[in-house]
Amino acid sequence: MIYRAISRRSFLTLAAASLAPWPRAAFAANAPRVDAQQLRARLEALSMFGRPPGGTFADGVSRVAYSDADVQGRQYVIGLMQSAGLAPRIDPAGNIFGRRAGAEASLPPILFGSHIDSVPSGGNFDGDLGSLSALGAMETLAAANVRTRHPLEMVVWAHEEGVAFTRGLACSRIVAGDIKPTDLDEVWNGMRRADALRRIGGDPDRILEARREKGSFHGYLELHIEQGGNLEKAGIPVGIVEGIVAIDKYDVVVSGFANHAGTTPMDQRQDALVAASQLTLAVREIVTSEPGRQVGTVGHLEISPNAPNVIPGAARLTIELRDLSADKLKRLGDAVRARARAIAGATRTTIEMKASSLAAPATASPDVQSAIERASRALQLPTLRLPSGAGHDAQMMALLGPMGMIFVPSVAGISHSPKELTRWDDCANGANVLVGAILELDRT
Amino acid sequence: MIYRAISRRSFLTLAAASLAPWPRAAFAANAPRVDAQQLRARLEALSMFGRPPGGTFADGVSRVAYSDADVQGRQYVIGLMQSAGLAPRIDPAGNIFGRRAGAEASLPPILFGSHIDSVPSGGNFDGDLGSLSALGAMETLAAANVRTRHPLEMVVWAHEEGVAFTRGLACSRIVAGDIKPTDLDEVWNGMRRADALRRIGGDPDRILEARREKGSFHGYLELHIEQGGNLEKAGIPVGIVEGIVAIDKYDVVVSGFANHAGTTPMDQRQDALVAASQLTLAVREIVTSEPGRQVGTVGHLEISPNAPNVIPGAARLTIELRDLSADKLKRLGDAVRARARAIAGATRTTIEMKASSLAAPATASPDVQSAIERASRALQLPTLRLPSGAGHDAQMMALLGPMGMIFVPSVAGISHSPKELTRWDDCANGANVLVGAILELDRT
Repeated sequence: MIYRAISRRSFLTLAAASLAPWPRAAFAANAPRVDAQQLRARLEALSMFGRPPGGTFADGVSRVAYSDADVQGRQYVIGLMQSAGLAPRIDPAGNIFGRRAGAEASLPPILFGSHIDSVPSGGNFDGDLGSLSALGAMETLAAANVRTRHPLEMVVWAHEEGVAFTRGLACSRIVAGDIKPTDLDEVWNGMRRADALRRIGGDPDRILEARREKGSFHGYLELHIEQGGNLEKAGIPVGIVEGIVAIDKYDVVVSGFANHAGTTPMDQRQDALVAASQLTLAVREIVTSEPGRQVGTVGHLEISPNAPNVIPGAARLTIELRDLSADKLKRLGDAVRARARAIAGATRTTIEMKASSLAAPATASPDVQSAIERASRALQLPTLRLPSGAGHDAQMMALLGPMGMIFVPSVAGISHSPKELTRWDDCANGANVLVGAILELDRT
Repeated sequence: MIYRAISRRSFLTLAAASLAPWPRAAFAANAPRVDAQQLRARLEALSMFGRPPGGTFADGVSRVAYSDADVQGRQYVIGLMQSAGLAPRIDPAGNIFGRRAGAEASLPPILFGSHIDSVPSGGNFDGDLGSLSALGAMETLAAANVRTRHPLEMVVWAHEEGVAFTRGLACSRIVAGDIKPTDLDEVWNGMRRADALRRIGGDPDRILEARREKGSFHGYLELHIEQGGNLEKAGIPVGIVEGIVAIDKYDVVVSGFANHAGTTPMDQRQDALVAASQLTLAVREIVTSEPGRQVGTVGHLEISPNAPNVIPGAARLTIELRDLSADKLKRLGDAVRARARAIAGATRTTIEMKASSLAAPATASPDVQSAIERASRALQLPTLRLPSGAGHDAQMMALLGPMGMIFVPSVAGISHSPKELTRWDDCANGANVLVGAILELDRT
């Protein structure tokens, strides 16, 4: 039980002794800790909403935004927030907020949280850990009677995964101001987005009121599983996110010539799949040809006519390149484009490569990174600075104010899969770093 | 008008002068010739049945077996056969036969023909040329009052393309004895095969009576477009088919691990598409690494989950290898299998490669090849011996007796496409070689 909250009495004793500014690390060392057993029990309870029939916790979850499972999971969390006296509020975009006053009413809040929607056949940690740890942090600080200077505000973002609707508009994006009237009319699975928002307690008629201004929070913190294998490989329990990578996406069309697979000699073929295969391997080769954490993926490929006895005449594929540096991404994209030209020439095909979206990187604030660093050090938890290869709600919050993220290890780096797993000790470590980082931020 | 039939009178004069055995080449040189203009007009007329709405001859045809277009096209040809006095007969499998008696009633017939069904969006020469030339040969010999020793029998095979029903049973295959009672119950596009056969005048209740015995014909001849580019490239008007290639088909399953495309470092991936791409290129490399006409194709590929932001976890693909030599095919298949093992190791995937069908080669009879050679020489048409990379009804007939095929050039080697084209002169050449080869065979 190393992560048990320290008793309220012992904390108050420490706090009373500390009216003068505390030495930097000493504060966090004595910061209250979340109830690790309760956190685990809640993660297990939340996993029931969207669990496959007859499955166990290990069988993951399908809690796609706006589904029955999502609505029920949200009700469960809202109930917990009510019990914690947080008077939960749902904004017009469906995001759930809970607030606790600070000592200085004029200061903006410290905002922290994550999401509870999942991808289809996802895991029980992505989003859930950060959301329930945010609640745990609220309760822990309240139980310890810690009065922060800034108001504290927890949030459970709606539809983070962006799997519903063609424009997979995460609701944190709406808070950052990215919403068009036509988005509300989009239909998905027979449901208008406006009605989907109503299903989760949002109010499409007042959607613009969900926007928050720049500077409307003191800092944003999000605890999340890494979803990659870097922390586990390095044997380090806490990741401090330097930023969220930029994503350059390309749509590629390869045009060859469909012909009879029996009668067309090898040297007369214009095989679109041969060209697409060369391009797929070129992406991997180019991305791995220089040092760094950049990644590149061909995740989608369709060929036509796709018949065993016909030489493929056309192929459509996607290329995704991700890195913290937009410059590096441009360089990699240019290299892939040059290679595509060479492949087209050699295979007598044409290859069109069109940038479909270029998402800018989101840098984590150095001050928030330092706060996480100090909180981790006080807990004697080694840290690793690393980029986030995945997108997060924090990306949107970076547009409005200082942002930072705490990562904890994913076993085998697996995510968006029922096999997603983070050890309970690591979950508790992350929640405790969140509490410490909130307090560190409160002092700045 | 170089291909006009010579006048009946001049032929009779020649024939009367030739009661003694004719010198080998002299016979064919003076053989009657088909009416090239009539052949063209009929190909154009037949193209109406299944022509795309508003299209022209150059827009190809969709005359899939058992469709309305197929039924109408068959009625058109049956009408022509009736006018030619051939008393067309439809066998229980839906194949159309027309017969003319020979001088020696005890001899088996010389059988020749092709098919008139097409692939969807196919061309106007594949099958049609051989079928209408067979009719033209019948008419030409009748008009010239040529009395052959053997009976002559033309055939229009049903459903050669095998695109209807899952088991794409060509009706010549039924004649060769390959039919199971369950085949008749198979449903395709809401139609039972038994009903499909009835639609084209077949009789599923008597389907076994469609079988013909080994030795039930003296020889089988089929004129067909090459569907490849060898004849055109060599500038040679007549191809003599040495045999129809064997086809070894493999179903391949690549299993990697689907993971987040943003968070999974390049060196920790088990990307099924990277492995499939390497295998696709290996097939091409192995097939082209030794001299010969062998071909290899990956025509079908599907990956999963096929999302731009997920590393492909699985891939399914087909490999087809074709050659006249079953030994060479085995050697190539073994080489691909060895390479698949190496790729699986290098990409940390598993690759299962399962032989799904191994079709034996069909050798053309040397005697029939010689007959075609002599007929071509008499017409002063240069010939090229070559394998057929495509399957044909002739493949089935090779199981029952001596078989030979005449190929004419396909412009740019294109087939199974509206762009399929054979020049009119080449069509007429082929039809005349068919007439000559029938007469050559009749002498043996």
